[in-house]
Amino acid sequence: MTYVAPIKDIRFVLEELLAVEETSHLPTFADTTPDVVAAIVEEAAKFAGEVIAPLNWPGDRAGVKWTDGEVATAPGFKEAYAQFVEAGWNGAVSETHYGGMGLPWIVNASIQEMFQAANMSFGLCPLLTQGAIEALAGYASQPLRDTYLANMVAGTWTGTMNLTEPQAGSDLAAVRTKAQPAGDHYLIKGQKIFITYGEHDMAENIIHLVLARLPDAPEGVKGISLFVVPKFLVNADGSLGARNDLRCVSVEHKLGIHASPTCTMAFGDNAGAVGYLVGEANRGLEYMFVMMNCARLGVGLQGVGVADRAYQHALKFAQERRQGRAPGSAAGSPIIEHADIRRMLGVMRTQTEAARALAYTAARSLDFANHSDDAETRARHQRRVDILIPVVKGWSTEMAIEVASLGVQIHGGMGFIEETGAAQHLRDARITTIYEGTTGIQSLDLVGRKILRDRGAAARELVADLRASAAAVAGRSGETWSVLAATAGEAADIVEELTGWLLASNDPARPGAAAVNILHAFGLALGAWRLVDMAAIAQTHLDAGDGDTAFCETKLASALFYALQVFPAARARRDAVTKGTDAVLALTSKLLTA
Amino acid sequence: MTYVAPIKDIRFVLEELLAVEETSHLPTFADTTPDVVAAIVEEAAKFAGEVIAPLNWPGDRAGVKWTDGEVATAPGFKEAYAQFVEAGWNGAVSETHYGGMGLPWIVNASIQEMFQAANMSFGLCPLLTQGAIEALAGYASQPLRDTYLANMVAGTWTGTMNLTEPQAGSDLAAVRTKAQPAGDHYLIKGQKIFITYGEHDMAENIIHLVLARLPDAPEGVKGISLFVVPKFLVNADGSLGARNDLRCVSVEHKLGIHASPTCTMAFGDNAGAVGYLVGEANRGLEYMFVMMNCARLGVGLQGVGVADRAYQHALKFAQERRQGRAPGSAAGSPIIEHADIRRMLGVMRTQTEAARALAYTAARSLDFANHSDDAETRARHQRRVDILIPVVKGWSTEMAIEVASLGVQIHGGMGFIEETGAAQHLRDARITTIYEGTTGIQSLDLVGRKILRDRGAAARELVADLRASAAAVAGRSGETWSVLAATAGEAADIVEELTGWLLASNDPARPGAAAVNILHAFGLALGAWRLVDMAAIAQTHLDAGDGDTAFCETKLASALFYALQVFPAARARRDAVTKGTDAVLALTSKLLTA
Repeated sequence: MTYVAPIKDIRFVLEELLAVEETSHLPTFADTTPDVVAAIVEEAAKFAGEVIAPLNWPGDRAGVKWTDGEVATAPGFKEAYAQFVEAGWNGAVSETHYGGMGLPWIVNASIQEMFQAANMSFGLCPLLTQGAIEALAGYASQPLRDTYLANMVAGTWTGTMNLTEPQAGSDLAAVRTKAQPAGDHYLIKGQKIFITYGEHDMAENIIHLVLARLPDAPEGVKGISLFVVPKFLVNADGSLGARNDLRCVSVEHKLGIHASPTCTMAFGDNAGAVGYLVGEANRGLEYMFVMMNCARLGVGLQGVGVADRAYQHALKFAQERRQGRAPGSAAGSPIIEHADIRRMLGVMRTQTEAARALAYTAARSLDFANHSDDAETRARHQRRVDILIPVVKGWSTEMAIEVASLGVQIHGGMGFIEETGAAQHLRDARITTIYEGTTGIQSLDLVGRKILRDRGAAARELVADLRASAAAVAGRSGETWSVLAATAGEAADIVEELTGWLLASNDPARPGAAAVNILHAFGLALGAWRLVDMAAIAQTHLDAGDGDTAFCETKLASALFYALQVFPAARARRDAVTKGTDAVLALTSKLLTA
Repeated sequence: MTYVAPIKDIRFVLEELLAVEETSHLPTFADTTPDVVAAIVEEAAKFAGEVIAPLNWPGDRAGVKWTDGEVATAPGFKEAYAQFVEAGWNGAVSETHYGGMGLPWIVNASIQEMFQAANMSFGLCPLLTQGAIEALAGYASQPLRDTYLANMVAGTWTGTMNLTEPQAGSDLAAVRTKAQPAGDHYLIKGQKIFITYGEHDMAENIIHLVLARLPDAPEGVKGISLFVVPKFLVNADGSLGARNDLRCVSVEHKLGIHASPTCTMAFGDNAGAVGYLVGEANRGLEYMFVMMNCARLGVGLQGVGVADRAYQHALKFAQERRQGRAPGSAAGSPIIEHADIRRMLGVMRTQTEAARALAYTAARSLDFANHSDDAETRARHQRRVDILIPVVKGWSTEMAIEVASLGVQIHGGMGFIEETGAAQHLRDARITTIYEGTTGIQSLDLVGRKILRDRGAAARELVADLRASAAAVAGRSGETWSVLAATAGEAADIVEELTGWLLASNDPARPGAAAVNILHAFGLALGAWRLVDMAAIAQTHLDAGDGDTAFCETKLASALFYALQVFPAARARRDAVTKGTDAVLALTSKLLTA
């Protein structure tokens, strides 16, 4: 159950598909030359494989222990986290001003994938801290930033996001937690649920970001403010002061990510928890939405990571397990010689490759959107980020569940035995389509905010890029390339057709009824786009006789397999949208409960 | 987390789609009139809901306890099993000669669905006993039958199937357990793994059926014999004698079905376990294959059952949970008003309905194959059983995993919390595509033994029935019926095209590379066939103004939803077969391990 980061694949995406050198031409990232990137990827791979990955399965078995408000993490987590902080990984993407490495997101995406693949439960802690850092760096006053950011970037203090309440899950308008003004601060009272790493023993302090309502705040989403509420108050000199009035009252017993504490947090059981307003009153939800791009990209990368780990696990088993005689093989051949085992491995591998490339593509645009010195370039990449994020989050995670489930299947009866470890990947992956916005929420974001709001402008830019990829390979000869060129063209057709269908929908209920099918179709089409582009690069190397021939051949095989075995589902999703959306609306709640 | 058996749906399939009255015209089942069937279904539903279902979640939490070779089942299981035996359910489908109810399989299918939905862990014990009863009833000598069957039919003794060994899973040719002749019996030595209910505390005796090799038996599948090996030897007067030399050495820690003990069994650690040959030497595997039809149908029904339970669970949550504002609804509407929640419920519900109807269709043919007094009818129904069983087993169980996972998704964050119970259905469902032959094994059975061996004869009979269904509705007017008639026709086309593709395949590796895609396409197409037939019956009631209008309308809505939201995946599977099989073969193990 080891994890070996797929460095070759990762570097191929970074260096060849996405020309990471161009990112280093952004002024902010001048130091992040391709050589530096390669070195960082190697180091992160080593840390992921040697320090974090070995704790994955033991952490699942041990889980976390709640005792009287305190949470003990699984054996080894505290020590590994200390190493993680020591190595500086927590600040990979944070500004150097606060002690971060200041890496671009495209590189951070690869680091995140590896850390999440190694150990999702462990990886959640820095993922949440990162979100809190962004909220503070983006919107908090200078004194708040000076008080909190350096320790959070270092990782000696961790961060949490306190959004959900029992009645307020996907619908944050229903938040009831209250904030009462009290001089230079506020007193927070309320209960929050599902708070990842809300309490634990790995850091000196825990900085909670909490959504709450001020007295007389407007109803609904426009009356929610964001507060920073530390576990230990911070003295003027930066030292830790009194314990704040907040407490972890329980941890959840979950299907997966057992080593990640999911806490119910009580704020203000006594006088009220001391909190400080972040930015302006009543703009909390807006701040959350801006941060969400990175958090959702992070969860999409969890999908990629856990899918890759499940694939590695299944591939190893398929090479070692001997059973039956495959056509053309000797009796007792390893099960990888059976065609259906290879079909399953292909579905796992090629979707993981596609989702990785798509997620890194979004990360690259995030860097250009934030750091290009050209306003038009920034705007164009921001549109690209905005439209890709819900697809990366929604599709990569749905894909991860399918892939992890196939991983169990390849193991046969052994897959159902927990000691094998294959089942953990499925259990862990199962949360990724739920938190940071369910797939349904991602799909509404895609069709509503990202396609309909700009009347399809960002979607048409995407179609243009897909058409360009198709055109670039149209002249290539041979059977493989005739399939791949046709697939690239059809991928563009599907994105275009679905965008047109959405824009032509008059009934306000139709986009919502079609949204998840559209999200899947986009994911499958954009995955095809990325794999065809990678195959074209590989073909160029093969034609020139340079590069790693065996590796380049795998890229062609992956693209072809995906085009013929995975991509057909995009047609089914398209048909479900264009012909079947009214049948969804016709299935009324009255019929379902008849 | 209650379970309420879907009696209306079940009776509609039994009485209207499958005309259960015709089954009562078979001489064996003259007493099983429709009135009797209805009463039995009501009683089984009550038992499932009131006695077995309440133990499902507590059983998952408690699991089983192994202590020094003994296995204690979860609290309440022993008492519920005693009630189960007392009520006679264990012998539902067994001959009255041995004390069974002598019900036809079509009725037993509905009983099985309900019991498995109520509690898969519990339901596995009688499912395994049933398999052992069939083996003994079919092949054992009269003295063996007289010794074991009455108690096994009653359920005071339970049965097991000991096939798997560490090196022999899907490939039973690799079985190594040895049987040494010793006078009137044999001495069995060897280790078996994954033995469901291999040891437990619910019955007075456990009758193990064990695959083993005689000295000098031929290599491979033709050298395997079947033995009956009781936990306690049975004296001449039928009383229990000495403990046999066999022992449960451990139980597995599994992803799901926690309350079902999965045992590693050691036979003959001392002198050898006393066993008796069933039937003739070296024909054990052949006997197993004959029994497997019923066991695989049983597992297919587990898929239907757990899918229905997951659907009920999610439907209830969707009606109660309030979150957000759906288009056209008030704020804080129940989430069932959100279109994507209804889409998910529709995918869950309509596939479950389709799989139920298909499984019962196979069960009906099993009765006619075994009990018709007309040889041609028997042969025709046997062909139908043979081709349907791998589809029922493979597709219903794959469907069940998808459905149970959607059930988790509908629950959002709550779905990931074990106390909610939604996750248990997914964990339990996850075994059904693995045991009694993986989906890969089912698909090889379908394409090899069931389609290619008779050169497509059984498949063509199926196509003819699908065409007849399409023709029967071709004249109906209205938009719904134009969709449904076209879908029925396309379902026939797909089954026909894939059969033709298989028959035209010369490369012996191609069927294996396409098999799982073919199985899915068959399942989706046959599901459409059954739903269209049910919709036609419902339409006839609606046109005549008789019957339950609201119920009949749900049947039309289900068929339409399935046709437009679920069935498109059949086209994707077809494309993957006809255009993509070579891409599977091209993804060699060399490429995967490059």
